[in-house]
Amino acid sequence: MKISARNVFKGKIVEVTKGATTAHVKIDIGGIVVTSSITNAAVEDLKLAAGKQASAIIKASDVMIGID
Amino acid sequence: MKISARNVFKGKIVEVTKGATTAHVKIDIGGIVVTSSITNAAVEDLKLAAGKQASAIIKASDVMIGID
Amino acid sequence: MKISARNVFKGKIVEVTKGATTAHVKIDIGGIVVTSSITNAAVEDLKLAAGKQASAIIKASDVMIGID
Amino acid sequence: MKISARNVFKGKIVEVTKGATTAHVKIDIGGIVVTSSITNAAVEDLKLAAGKQASAIIKASDVMIGID
Amino acid sequence: MKISARNVFKGKIVEVTKGATTAHVKIDIGGIVVTSSITNAAVEDLKLAAGKQASAIIKASDVMIGID
Amino acid sequence: MKISARNVFKGKIVEVTKGATTAHVKIDIGGIVVTSSITNAAVEDLKLAAGKQASAIIKASDVMIGID
Repeated sequence: MKISARNVFKGKIVEVTKGATTAHVKIDIGGIVVTSSITNAAVEDLKLAAGKQASAIIKASDVMIGID
Repeated sequence: MKISARNVFKGKIVEVTKGATTAHVKIDIGGIVVTSSITNAAVEDLKLAAGKQASAIIKASDVMIGID
Repeated sequence: MKISARNVFKGKIVEVTKGATTAHVKIDIGGIVVTSSITNAAVEDLKLAAGKQASAIIKASDVMIGID
Repeated sequence: MKISARNVFKGKIVEVTKGATTAHVKIDIGGIVVTSSITNAAVEDLKLAAGKQASAIIKASDVMIGID
Repeated sequence: MKISARNVFKGKIVEVTKGATTAHVKIDIGGIVVTSSITNAAVEDLKLAAGKQASAIIKASDVMIGID
Repeated sequence: MKISARNVFKGKIVEVTKGATTAHVKIDIGGIVVTSSITNAAVEDLKLAAGKQASAIIKASDVMIGID
């Protein structure tokens, strides 16, 4: 499937932490580590685990810009 | 200001495209280009322009994971 | 690609309206019409047009519940 | 109250799962089951439970489009 | 309708600016002016205009925290 | 850091509730209490606690409008 989200970055999962209903997944995309908060159900459904190839996907309207 | 968003990536703006009310800003963070959709008002307020240093900021709950 | 978003609903595009930078896409998923606001760039990249098969994708944390 | 969100779909709650702070609510809207991630506080405040009538509410800017 | 979003603040619309597809609405909630970006279709459907009573509605997962 | 988000409201934290992975933070901005759902990691990183000065930050595209 190809998705309308403008930001799809391939990488490798470095950490999966499951909570009561919500999990945190860290993914390394070319040296940059992105933190994702998704449902435990998604972690199980996609069999996400450290070391697996995966992509971080972010809709353009969810990206803010900051300046110093 | 320090922000709760888990993803704050420093980089350089490579393109700013203003629309009627919404602008698209592309920012290069270490070789990865992130596309952001923000208000024209934010572009003007922060004086965003190609070549300027800036950060892409993304809340963890706005990051999805995809696998092939 | 398989995605962590819990809501992926197959359907058919019924309308695409492009603005200056932001487009609105309506997609019929089994009799329910979902309205999506995405970038013009995504519409062009995915060649979205009325009559094409497509899926509406929504992260669980973006769904609210209302009661009467 | 009438809301600006373009997607308001009436249905019936089929499952409520509470976690430590975050709950997952599944709602059937005409044969399509939508998964929502909301606060436990909202579940208590709205007295959400399986079998109750409710609507799934989604802002257009939170809907992505995917194609195969 | 009562909504799961934890943040519902009553106020008065102070400005409506329509773009090609996306509108910006400013609403004063007790001296604080909140800026909202919604579809033009929502503005027309709800007949939003400066001076009208309205509420700003924000899901808890869309609120970040910053410290100086 | 200055941020593109149109809504940055200074206030004081009134409550921090940590869950398994997700925390809820309530912040009083001039008499209005805003509820935020962020990662436990953010609470620890920013040392958020009741009584501390902080800002609520909300992107314009995450604000909906409701009318009675």
